[in-house]
Amino acid sequence: LTSKLPNVGTTIFTVMTALAAEKKAVNLGQGFPDFDCDPKLVQAVTQAMQSGLNQYPPMAGVPALRETIATKIQALYAYEYSPDTEITITAGATQAILTAILAVVHAGDEVIVLEPCYDSYVPNIELAGGIAVRVPLTPGTFRPDFARIAAAITPQTRAIIVNSPHNPSGTVWTAAEMQQLEALLKPTQTLLISDEVYEHMVFDGQQHQSASSFPGLAERAFVVSSFGKTFHVTGWKVGYVAAPAALSQEFRKVHQFNVFTVNTPVQHALADYMRDPAPYLGLSDFYQAKRDLFRAGLAQTRLKLLPCEGTYFQSVDISEVSALGEADFCKWLTTEVGVAAIPTSAFYGNGFDQHVVRFCFAKKTETLELALEKLQQL
Amino acid sequence: LTSKLPNVGTTIFTVMTALAAEKKAVNLGQGFPDFDCDPKLVQAVTQAMQSGLNQYPPMAGVPALRETIATKIQALYAYEYSPDTEITITAGATQAILTAILAVVHAGDEVIVLEPCYDSYVPNIELAGGIAVRVPLTPGTFRPDFARIAAAITPQTRAIIVNSPHNPSGTVWTAAEMQQLEALLKPTQTLLISDEVYEHMVFDGQQHQSASSFPGLAERAFVVSSFGKTFHVTGWKVGYVAAPAALSQEFRKVHQFNVFTVNTPVQHALADYMRDPAPYLGLSDFYQAKRDLFRAGLAQTRLKLLPCEGTYFQSVDISEVSALGEADFCKWLTTEVGVAAIPTSAFYGNGFDQHVVRFCFAKKTETLELALEKLQQL
Ligand SMILES: CSCCC(=O)C(=O)O
Ligand SMILES: CSCCC(=O)C(=O)O
Repeated sequence: LTSKLPNVGTTIFTVMTALAAEKKAVNLGQGFPDFDCDPKLVQAVTQAMQSGLNQYPPMAGVPALRETIATKIQALYAYEYSPDTEITITAGATQAILTAILAVVHAGDEVIVLEPCYDSYVPNIELAGGIAVRVPLTPGTFRPDFARIAAAITPQTRAIIVNSPHNPSGTVWTAAEMQQLEALLKPTQTLLISDEVYEHMVFDGQQHQSASSFPGLAERAFVVSSFGKTFHVTGWKVGYVAAPAALSQEFRKVHQFNVFTVNTPVQHALADYMRDPAPYLGLSDFYQAKRDLFRAGLAQTRLKLLPCEGTYFQSVDISEVSALGEADFCKWLTTEVGVAAIPTSAFYGNGFDQHVVRFCFAKKTETLELALEKLQQL
Repeated sequence: LTSKLPNVGTTIFTVMTALAAEKKAVNLGQGFPDFDCDPKLVQAVTQAMQSGLNQYPPMAGVPALRETIATKIQALYAYEYSPDTEITITAGATQAILTAILAVVHAGDEVIVLEPCYDSYVPNIELAGGIAVRVPLTPGTFRPDFARIAAAITPQTRAIIVNSPHNPSGTVWTAAEMQQLEALLKPTQTLLISDEVYEHMVFDGQQHQSASSFPGLAERAFVVSSFGKTFHVTGWKVGYVAAPAALSQEFRKVHQFNVFTVNTPVQHALADYMRDPAPYLGLSDFYQAKRDLFRAGLAQTRLKLLPCEGTYFQSVDISEVSALGEADFCKWLTTEVGVAAIPTSAFYGNGFDQHVVRFCFAKKTETLELALEKLQQL
């Protein structure tokens, strides 16, 4: 058996979560909250199940949920998607991204990824028979380097994957950066896959810049988001993609033969729950408070804080603390100090090591305090 | 934009369900129950959510559920899978089949499908860059034609997809047929994708013959099943795949970059619920009663009954009732008679028309009676 993905092992998230469990370490590795969702949301799923909403929903998703999303996008990003033909509910953002790639990437097509990037992107491209073209974000700042992106675009470039707010660095692209991307792509046939799963976690008064807000991007973009991240239910596996009708049509062709459709009662519950925008509109403040608490504690350690403009991840430079490589440092930190983290090098194809590791602060105050106590021993 | 799937439109199931809704017809088209699941199962999901089991489960699935499945397979099919390395929970059987294909089919590989077959198989193969080799089941009986299958196997054959109990025909492969398949594949490198989603719906004392029961098949098989079909929750989108460790390893590489993992509370609930085997062990009797009621009513019509050994589908020959092609007949039946059905031609690449249409009898007694009343006017 010849592997289709010879370079792929178990994801770093699974590896570190398993190690954290084994060592009884505080798990600030894999990105998921250790607190629960709003009980109203659980109630809404129960109600949907009890009303007998347990069979196949429409392939593209429950209409009420698609309408809610269209309304949200229009309110926040001033772009009008048709819920009927332009919004599709997915089994999480990862499934949305693979499906978009399978739908538009032909054998031999190039797809640009900006490293460091989420570890599914490159295997997704390879599974479609495409060629991943890795362009680094600026080392140190993790901001887009448009000269390098421009240089990577060829007539074979089918798409570019952009992720803002950015995992792992927490960088949030500015409007000016989005406009630069728009200008760069305008004369090309390049599609955009915009991974915006952290759209509702942006700090210090900065605004999330959705690809939907930039007409030259929206017209060529699959905009992907996640309910799991936004509503503290990463285990429910539900997200969505918004894309112009022609792109959505190709997306749905693949979607219907991948998962066909997505958990019915969860979709009804989300449609119901999202009629109140307060939970997602308040999410940035909620996570900013956690970020501030966590940063204040880290400032007492020898770890050097990097900026965190969005997401629920805080990166630190480990140079002053350890001479170990990032991956070894994370293993050591989990095993010896009792705090799990993720090495940024895991987000690069070549394992590029800048002595930067990522903590997830989507945790209860007591969890963050326990972790900080341990980290302050460093 | 050049389509990756130029021949694919909206699935026949979506089309007929929409038409049935528009015409207020009794929907015996798409395969899903119109009755509800066991309230205990809803209760179990609620309990899992309320216990805070709402974050990512392990990538391969909740261990207790994988153990339950391994135990079930051992009890029913006398094959021992490791829950750890050989069973993976999926977002339904369709996702399992696409994932298996993406995991093992390389560009240019051939995959044999036996027509009529479920409409996702061929696009799944094409998305992997493979070539679908269509071999007909014996017209009229829908039984495997081993001479034709043998003739289709070449050194490029990576896999064959087999589906028993068979959708749409309801044929159940005998042990002798499975042994013939085993003998045929033995000297080859051909993998088997065994779609067994109707495994617990086999009638008249016949036994489901799982690929897991035949060592020469099990060692090369992805055995796929569905909780949605078995527990009357098609909208929950949850299934599984059992495969030897080497195959499961490749499967999981793709799975983790497709959906990553599957709804946590649903998995815990199923693990809990399946401790009692009565619901799935009793399913054949449950559906046999429905089949018998439905067949007795159809015997009063001019539709000619075909055999139904398993699944929740009953096929009929329409030759004496109408000169219309199957697809037009189904539209006419939905619109004019008020009963939706699925044309068997939709399960063939070339639309081969044998004047056979499929009804789903996974319906309440009153629904079946209402449909029969209408069909008796024919
Ligand atoms: C799918 S597991 C990883 C969760 C996540 O988004 C992250 O930790 O980066
Ligand atoms: C995924 S919709 C189709 C359901 C089904 O299995 C069928 O009707 O054949």
